[in-house]
Amino acid sequence: MALTLTDQQTAASIVALAGGVGGARLAEGLQQLVGSRLTVIGNVADDTELWGLHISPDLDTVMYTLAGIANEETGWGIAGDTWQSFEMLAHYGAEPWFRLGDRDLATHLLRTDLLRSGATLTEVTTRLARALGVQAHLLPVTNATLRTIVLTNEGELAFQEYFVHRRWQPRLLGLRFEGADQAGLTPAALAALDAAATVVLCPSNPFVSIAPLLAVEPLPARLRVLKAAGVPVVAVSPIVGGQALKGPAAKMFAELGEEPTALAVARRYTDFLSHFLLDVRDADQIDAVRALGLVVGAADTIMLDREGRRRVAAAALALARGAA
Amino acid sequence: MALTLTDQQTAASIVALAGGVGGARLAEGLQQLVGSRLTVIGNVADDTELWGLHISPDLDTVMYTLAGIANEETGWGIAGDTWQSFEMLAHYGAEPWFRLGDRDLATHLLRTDLLRSGATLTEVTTRLARALGVQAHLLPVTNATLRTIVLTNEGELAFQEYFVHRRWQPRLLGLRFEGADQAGLTPAALAALDAAATVVLCPSNPFVSIAPLLAVEPLPARLRVLKAAGVPVVAVSPIVGGQALKGPAAKMFAELGEEPTALAVARRYTDFLSHFLLDVRDADQIDAVRALGLVVGAADTIMLDREGRRRVAAAALALARGAA
Repeated sequence: MALTLTDQQTAASIVALAGGVGGARLAEGLQQLVGSRLTVIGNVADDTELWGLHISPDLDTVMYTLAGIANEETGWGIAGDTWQSFEMLAHYGAEPWFRLGDRDLATHLLRTDLLRSGATLTEVTTRLARALGVQAHLLPVTNATLRTIVLTNEGELAFQEYFVHRRWQPRLLGLRFEGADQAGLTPAALAALDAAATVVLCPSNPFVSIAPLLAVEPLPARLRVLKAAGVPVVAVSPIVGGQALKGPAAKMFAELGEEPTALAVARRYTDFLSHFLLDVRDADQIDAVRALGLVVGAADTIMLDREGRRRVAAAALALARGAA
Repeated sequence: MALTLTDQQTAASIVALAGGVGGARLAEGLQQLVGSRLTVIGNVADDTELWGLHISPDLDTVMYTLAGIANEETGWGIAGDTWQSFEMLAHYGAEPWFRLGDRDLATHLLRTDLLRSGATLTEVTTRLARALGVQAHLLPVTNATLRTIVLTNEGELAFQEYFVHRRWQPRLLGLRFEGADQAGLTPAALAALDAAATVVLCPSNPFVSIAPLLAVEPLPARLRVLKAAGVPVVAVSPIVGGQALKGPAAKMFAELGEEPTALAVARRYTDFLSHFLLDVRDADQIDAVRALGLVVGAADTIMLDREGRRRVAAAALALARGAA
């Protein structure tokens, strides 16, 4: 597989849909390749409010990763962050299960303050990302309130309650995205999609990172239009060898009665997808995915370091331009 | 001067009016002597809002000092605090002149969150102080919004703008306490005053710590009633040898056209004061202060350490009970 890009791809804009650690890493690989020609549309459905602060964990994971300051071990927060504020909050008897680093806290403080002053989440995210030196354009999918509610065997749980507090242990029965009907894609995200030469669905959790993005109209309709117009819409599988590299994606597939495979991921996206990149470990699924009507490529999709991210990003773009 | 207390004084409650470093230190000395029988009424007129947080610098200086965690070098904040959040905020381009330590930030976060949830500043302050192990009852003078506005040769300045940002360099022309008309003493502060066996005006800045307390009705009227009823109302001079030990009190006296002396402090309070403790270095002013109708004592009022605070507190109480 050629790792170079066509002139058209380097000049044209790439839109990535990304959330979580895997999604953030591929987005960072794409940023290495195309810099400011990358627009990342991020998930806000796991945003939460804590101590009066508007916290956007998924958007921040992507932002910190794009800025090169993400904590790679935890998958959230800032590398080398400290815990003085948090420990003091705990000392005051405040809920201790959602940890906030001191530097991370500054992000939430400023975001909350700017939002209260009337700025949109798009404006706030742009300001924060620029200050951190992020080259790509990071955009929330919506400026409205959108919240993932997790239906479990223990009842409905707010996303962070399920994900962080309960460490995704309750059994998943379903998901709903509160506010999706009224949310609406932002004008900036819509404009980026309309100008896209390639769309990349990053290897993010299909249920809690990608699905809430697709719940925002007219995002899925727009992707179908792009595909129909011949714009490659390529997904990179977050499932490798039946496992999620990080997080509960495989567990969620199983709990929803489906085998956790690259094929199962591809099936969820056939409506608007044109290309699918799976891992070489899942090469046995190529024919089955191809049978869905997709152009399929296989590559080593494990992103252990900066170079790995660049390599997988290049593989996805090469597949999209028909060079795989 | 005897340093022991009468049985009546140890059993009865003491109310201290305190703000700033000197005030906080004497309050801590009083707390050493009478523990939970001390109520401290604190100043909220230099409260400010920053990044959406309700910050109560004067109340916190007293709270941290009573809790034994104050930063003694700076006179504000928590000893050994770190600056990760603040540096990140600065990195984001937020105003850098008002510094907030990481642990200190937790105080403001929780206070703001509780206030937004409908708690009064009295309830919040009680909760925070208890969590920090403060024995005394720390009460804001009012639950309402009260703000010191500084009239200077450069125009009107909000208190923190004048005090922190401009480091009290503009020339003082006057002060006003915005919201004082509507503020109103809290029921808790009123009850503490009504039960007081002794009232102590700590060696706090008369213009920006004590004056805003006295601007809240019916505090001065209550002090006059107490004095008339024979309850000692004793002030400790914040001016020693023509200087303020910390802060702009002496500079303020001079700019308002008055010599900065213990006598000048006593003159401001004659209306409701019965006793006045000045420093031995100012013993030459004893007769002049006595001529104001006050019972005067002299002691070494410098509080260099915990023992010094206890010593000055004992001197003030001894003077109040007529043992000086």
